[in-house]
Amino acid sequence: MATKTEIRRQELRDSLIIIAERTIAQTGLSALRARDLAKEAGCAVGAIYNVFGDLTDLTLAVNARTFHRLGADVAEALADAPEDPVEQLVVMAQAYHRFAADNHLSWRALFDVERAPGEAAPDWYLAEMGQLFAYISDPLAVIFPDRDGEELALLTRALFSSVHGIVLLGLDEASAGVSTDNIDRMIALVLRQFAGNPK
Amino acid sequence: MATKTEIRRQELRDSLIIIAERTIAQTGLSALRARDLAKEAGCAVGAIYNVFGDLTDLTLAVNARTFHRLGADVAEALADAPEDPVEQLVVMAQAYHRFAADNHLSWRALFDVERAPGEAAPDWYLAEMGQLFAYISDPLAVIFPDRDGEELALLTRALFSSVHGIVLLGLDEASAGVSTDNIDRMIALVLRQFAGNPK
Repeated sequence: MATKTEIRRQELRDSLIIIAERTIAQTGLSALRARDLAKEAGCAVGAIYNVFGDLTDLTLAVNARTFHRLGADVAEALADAPEDPVEQLVVMAQAYHRFAADNHLSWRALFDVERAPGEAAPDWYLAEMGQLFAYISDPLAVIFPDRDGEELALLTRALFSSVHGIVLLGLDEASAGVSTDNIDRMIALVLRQFAGNPK
Repeated sequence: MATKTEIRRQELRDSLIIIAERTIAQTGLSALRARDLAKEAGCAVGAIYNVFGDLTDLTLAVNARTFHRLGADVAEALADAPEDPVEQLVVMAQAYHRFAADNHLSWRALFDVERAPGEAAPDWYLAEMGQLFAYISDPLAVIFPDRDGEELALLTRALFSSVHGIVLLGLDEASAGVSTDNIDRMIALVLRQFAGNPK
């Protein structure tokens, strides 16, 4: 049975994640400060570091929730997608674009979180990314039945990165200035062309 | 004829760009501080803002030099590339990867510079990007003779963004961990597949 201390610790943990999630969504990862979090959670600054090793750990906990929401959106788009594997890729990539546009700062935090040099992401974090990659590799395996597993893994990562790049630079109004429609067109152009099915 | 004041102002400008360029290359854009710059340049903090409107303006001046170096590397790679337009794209994209790996923090600063919301990049900055895009659109026009100008422009931007995404996530060891060889393989896979010339 959990002790009172354990329950309080868990409650503070949940509360800090919710507060940090809102802060990141509204003002971005760079606005996350231990002092502000402590004030809003009604705890001492030291209590945060008692629950999370550092703000990066807290950010990873927030990012895990963002990855889950993103995965759910992609899965929902896939459920409504046509049977054609190329169109499945297009629909998922456009869902990725929509999620990134609607949750811009939370989405940026997925990639902007800073780790110490050489420190890899935790396994559960890589597992979340792996789930996203699985959505891509399934249709790719149908499109490219002759590619072996290692090539499919590279293609999967390459396609995810390509769509990510199109969305990232497309949403960066200051440097690129691409309309929402044109981001979706670029995604469809690249994926259809890539999969040998230009329309 | 330039007055002494004008000459001193120009010298301070040049000196600040050199110092900021080294700071960004060694410790990244986020380490750029007016106080440190002033100390190293031997001027008052206010003198910086007399020459540059703000640190963003100074960063853009540094980024312009980085864009020039990047463009020169891409042009050099293109000069040695085979005649085949698909292979030209591959060679240029791999030169982009090499530049990003060798000049990682300077390259990141090209995209991480923060502007006020809604404020577009200056024209000369967009012109630098346009020059890079021209290197891509020329072979694309050979590969896709039937695409009209607007489609070629979208394809060009989409391909640049795709390669950028592959390089960006590939070099982010903490989240992705892709070897240099595999980044080059992903680039070649996507571009050859994209251009209908899978090998």
